[in-house]
Amino acid sequence: MDQRVIEHADVLVDWSAQVERGDNVIVSVAEGTHDLAVAVAEKLGDRGANMITLYDSDELSSAYLSAHDGTFDHAGAHEQRLLEKADVYLRLGGGRNTAETSDIPQSVRQAYNKSRTDAREARMNTDWVSTLHPTRSLAQQAGMSYSAYKTFVYNAILRDWESLAEEMAEMKTLLDAGSEVHITTDRTDLTMSIADRTAVNSCASVAYDSHNLPSGEVFTAPYATTGTAFFDVPMTIDGTRVQDVELVFADGTVVDYSAVQGEETLSGVLETDDGARRLGELGIGMNRGIDRFTDNILFDEKMGDTVHLAVGRAYDACLPTGETGNKSAVHVDMIMDMSSNSTLSIDGEVIQRDGTFRWEDGFEA
Amino acid sequence: MDQRVIEHADVLVDWSAQVERGDNVIVSVAEGTHDLAVAVAEKLGDRGANMITLYDSDELSSAYLSAHDGTFDHAGAHEQRLLEKADVYLRLGGGRNTAETSDIPQSVRQAYNKSRTDAREARMNTDWVSTLHPTRSLAQQAGMSYSAYKTFVYNAILRDWESLAEEMAEMKTLLDAGSEVHITTDRTDLTMSIADRTAVNSCASVAYDSHNLPSGEVFTAPYATTGTAFFDVPMTIDGTRVQDVELVFADGTVVDYSAVQGEETLSGVLETDDGARRLGELGIGMNRGIDRFTDNILFDEKMGDTVHLAVGRAYDACLPTGETGNKSAVHVDMIMDMSSNSTLSIDGEVIQRDGTFRWEDGFEA
Repeated sequence: MDQRVIEHADVLVDWSAQVERGDNVIVSVAEGTHDLAVAVAEKLGDRGANMITLYDSDELSSAYLSAHDGTFDHAGAHEQRLLEKADVYLRLGGGRNTAETSDIPQSVRQAYNKSRTDAREARMNTDWVSTLHPTRSLAQQAGMSYSAYKTFVYNAILRDWESLAEEMAEMKTLLDAGSEVHITTDRTDLTMSIADRTAVNSCASVAYDSHNLPSGEVFTAPYATTGTAFFDVPMTIDGTRVQDVELVFADGTVVDYSAVQGEETLSGVLETDDGARRLGELGIGMNRGIDRFTDNILFDEKMGDTVHLAVGRAYDACLPTGETGNKSAVHVDMIMDMSSNSTLSIDGEVIQRDGTFRWEDGFEA
Repeated sequence: MDQRVIEHADVLVDWSAQVERGDNVIVSVAEGTHDLAVAVAEKLGDRGANMITLYDSDELSSAYLSAHDGTFDHAGAHEQRLLEKADVYLRLGGGRNTAETSDIPQSVRQAYNKSRTDAREARMNTDWVSTLHPTRSLAQQAGMSYSAYKTFVYNAILRDWESLAEEMAEMKTLLDAGSEVHITTDRTDLTMSIADRTAVNSCASVAYDSHNLPSGEVFTAPYATTGTAFFDVPMTIDGTRVQDVELVFADGTVVDYSAVQGEETLSGVLETDDGARRLGELGIGMNRGIDRFTDNILFDEKMGDTVHLAVGRAYDACLPTGETGNKSAVHVDMIMDMSSNSTLSIDGEVIQRDGTFRWEDGFEA
């Protein structure tokens, strides 16, 4: 087995999920991720954890949902019980065809997701970590050879996470102290409030309330958003390519939107519920191991030269105790490239210009 | 997709598991069974059932258990919750290497199984069905080409189950009314009591208390066994080949035994506990779609020209209400070929001679 797969499992189980003896662990195994699953299973056995493995297959989901009439009655009730008794949930993402679920009717998908709200919340209450095993399908999506894609993925995942956590702590300090964020690019001029919100130092460990591997972003839950945001990084939502999205905000809510490609899909997202038209997240990518866009949100949004905004659900970790943030059945991230003609400012002070943070070489105040 | 896979899913979901709208269904997907899983998922969607899929990988189990120190604390607690909330459990067996788990230490395997007793019992309380998708590994075990093996498997599974259920009902009637069974072959002369015992018409449907697909056997729980039984069909017990077993019974208990191959493994089985030396089952194979031995108990014991006896645990369904049958930690089936020089008699009347039942063409009274 590729030694990097074993190292990936080590980082996932020890640094990211902090698995301990006797923990009830769920491992969700996507198509094409068998090798990583074997390495994770061995690691969990060695740690003395309890393991159950789920099969996460887009082909099965597609077959199931396409045949369903779309009326669901608590579709995740048995899964919910499992999740409620679990300590750790490890999602090994991968797959063999990123377009596999593209022909599921939007209404069926929405009804299904809605009926699984309790199960999803139970999963969010575990120490969950979502990671990714490089598959040929993901390499194709990225427009890369399989070999080059593997190098790319492990560069992003096998980092010195403790050191990156220290650098990101600086950004968290700035966001926690700040009241207003202002972002400008060629086509973006957006202001949002972050007063009283707490940023998460997302360094790929549940110990930091960070649930992605790789991670490498600092994020918070903005509100009262005003202005225009343009997202120039292409993305895939529910199997559909969506490109060049523009959102216009007034008083925190999307009042106008467009997309050069995939506008219908975008519309479906925004019309899910009220919360889907408000921001749930502002994230600042800081993982310098990610050096190109690969049409995969798990990587793209962590890239050092990007900022992303998500419409929909906010993370509780960003909110003052007892306060509820933006609620929604969706959470869809959209990314803007900050590498040129851009500024990110907090309370009027430029923190990042043209992709360079103020503590990095070459920063121009 | 092979049309037979779709028909298999139809039989499994409708006839065997009798899935209804809103049922919470677990689908356990072994390595190599993806195609059947897709067909089952589509069927479950069409029926409006709720679905969760487990990944049943011998490679993962082996990696996990081989790395574990062997001390388990309720290893199936989260799985148990899932099972308690499930209505139906569909086990899609398959695999890519029948010897994959052979290097797990016996002590670790036993400790693991013991700690999962509650989960196992919860599974037995669902409408569970165990079936099998033809894989290359199973074809190899059977000594057959992949193509020929698929034909064999679907011949066994895609039967007119209602019609076979009617035929087997005749056998059940005979066994329920009978007091004594007498079996003779070249090297077998065995008598056992079945008075007051109830036979199970195992026609591959939970509606008949039958949980295997394929099935096609009628079985009961004999006692007071006397005489000699010779099992000429080879079998694999815990990964070891066992062949030409002879058991000598007196007053219901094995008093002498031998095997040309694997006698040590046989000895280990018989010495597990007191019940391991008494019979728990007499089964009469009646599935004429199974026309050869394939070293797989799910098929071999259902073959029309065979009778099998199991040492160990009896099934409650065969016992008078309130009565406990033979108890044991084991249940090991052994098969004898009845195709020539054999008789199966109930209370002195020959029911099957040389493999032909008395209601079949060519039967000689």
